[in-house]
Amino acid sequence: MNTDGEMDTVAARFSAEHSEEVVAASFANTSDPRLHRILTSLVGHLHAFVKDVELTDEEWAAAIRFLTETGAMCSPVRQEFILLSDVLGVSMLVETLNHDTDGGTESTVEGPFHVVDSPPRELGADIALDGKGEPCLVTGAVTGTDGSPVPGATVDVWQANADGFYDVQQPELQPERNLRGLFTTDDEGRFRFRTIVPRYYPIPTDGPVGRLLEATGRHPNRPAHIHFDVRAGNYRSVTTHLFVAGTPYIDSDAVFGVKDSLVRDFPVVDDPERAAAAELPNPFRTVHFDVVLRENPT
Amino acid sequence: MNTDGEMDTVAARFSAEHSEEVVAASFANTSDPRLHRILTSLVGHLHAFVKDVELTDEEWAAAIRFLTETGAMCSPVRQEFILLSDVLGVSMLVETLNHDTDGGTESTVEGPFHVVDSPPRELGADIALDGKGEPCLVTGAVTGTDGSPVPGATVDVWQANADGFYDVQQPELQPERNLRGLFTTDDEGRFRFRTIVPRYYPIPTDGPVGRLLEATGRHPNRPAHIHFDVRAGNYRSVTTHLFVAGTPYIDSDAVFGVKDSLVRDFPVVDDPERAAAAELPNPFRTVHFDVVLRENPT
Repeated sequence: MNTDGEMDTVAARFSAEHSEEVVAASFANTSDPRLHRILTSLVGHLHAFVKDVELTDEEWAAAIRFLTETGAMCSPVRQEFILLSDVLGVSMLVETLNHDTDGGTESTVEGPFHVVDSPPRELGADIALDGKGEPCLVTGAVTGTDGSPVPGATVDVWQANADGFYDVQQPELQPERNLRGLFTTDDEGRFRFRTIVPRYYPIPTDGPVGRLLEATGRHPNRPAHIHFDVRAGNYRSVTTHLFVAGTPYIDSDAVFGVKDSLVRDFPVVDDPERAAAAELPNPFRTVHFDVVLRENPT
Repeated sequence: MNTDGEMDTVAARFSAEHSEEVVAASFANTSDPRLHRILTSLVGHLHAFVKDVELTDEEWAAAIRFLTETGAMCSPVRQEFILLSDVLGVSMLVETLNHDTDGGTESTVEGPFHVVDSPPRELGADIALDGKGEPCLVTGAVTGTDGSPVPGATVDVWQANADGFYDVQQPELQPERNLRGLFTTDDEGRFRFRTIVPRYYPIPTDGPVGRLLEATGRHPNRPAHIHFDVRAGNYRSVTTHLFVAGTPYIDSDAVFGVKDSLVRDFPVVDDPERAAAAELPNPFRTVHFDVVLRENPT
């Protein structure tokens, strides 16, 4: 107590100079040490950014509006915050930091369209329910890093249709669960399904993220790809894409998702016998994509 | 062209090591140089944060959920992103960086409750429409930094009621525009109004920001204050608070808004004559708060 009978507490009053320390000190009672570390680092970098650019009141207010509008754009079938994370390269950075390749298939972003469950389908099934686009046979095998086949692995695939839209973006135009399928590998770890050759497409531009891209002179397009999410017991799962070689935008993916190891040719097959065997019209396109899973650490 | 007939473009493929540069390069065509600077800095600091803490997939997903829930909490009378900015000290940092004192009254955060216009009122009016709390007379004058009075300045005030809630938080319990008023200073730059002594109160804790405070062991309280926003032609406006000396939480404001220069005593006056002159019951509380505006740069 001092002579005025008040507490002698020397309050750490907020100042621009010491702002990070003052705010970080407020987190001192955080019981989860990981949360404490994350918040302390976040506040440090966030304040450093604000000071670096000397953010004005109006710019701060614009940022609040942008975040609020991004929130308002979110719905059960639209995730504008994931889109924002994607176009700022944050999704890809997190993906890359957490998934060392180490002999396995490289991962890439999940993207915002895995919002409904894929329907389980028999091997060889056709996931293109709307009859549009260039028919394509996809084959591949799931193996461990030692090359041993992984039977019973689940291979979850989803892609945009020939017009560049996912089913959930066009609930009135596309059949439900169009171009989605959940397959299980056979005794030799193999999978196969029929689909269409994917087309490049723009990410949704009718929200705040679209306005951000426009203001920065960036195109919104993603090179053509099929999403894969492959899981099996005792292996680490992998979320990745199969990219079409030669697709437009392969060098300027709006979400930075391209890795060279994930690009494959989709050659034309002109052979009535093979077309009949694949249950596809002749000619058709084909692609082979093997997925290598790393064993779980024991 | 190389021998394969393809473009020689050396694509800057994404890598964790060079992630900031790859994303920053995507902003090269931004026409507004200020936006370019802000986004480049933002991406640099954001990626540095992710790398610093090695954010996991699950933590990234939790961050997306947190932002989405923060967005879902926003409404015309609730601004959860401003609350988030407030509890992370970002609002106060922006305010402090942009408002050098320089002889004028210090500013502080606007807070998320200036969401409806204050009703214009005559000098001396009582803004406490719900009849609750300890009656208080607020007096003051608006001057320039040279001490000259500023007649015709607008003094916008708003505060929580005796239970610690703003009118917009309790539309069914409080009269509309309770404890809000827009006053105009008289020929000598003076203002006066009747109200109640504000009480400390918690910021709203029923949303994601409340959960963040709980997880970090932080209390949600703000020391007792009256908001002021003072404007006059040829002067810079100031957004600030008048804090009650001795209020709980004066040293641990949940939004870091306290500045020593903004704290005032609210002494009790026990004098029937003065009470009658103020049109308040005896005894009553009183406070004097002079506001000094800086001239606009010419």
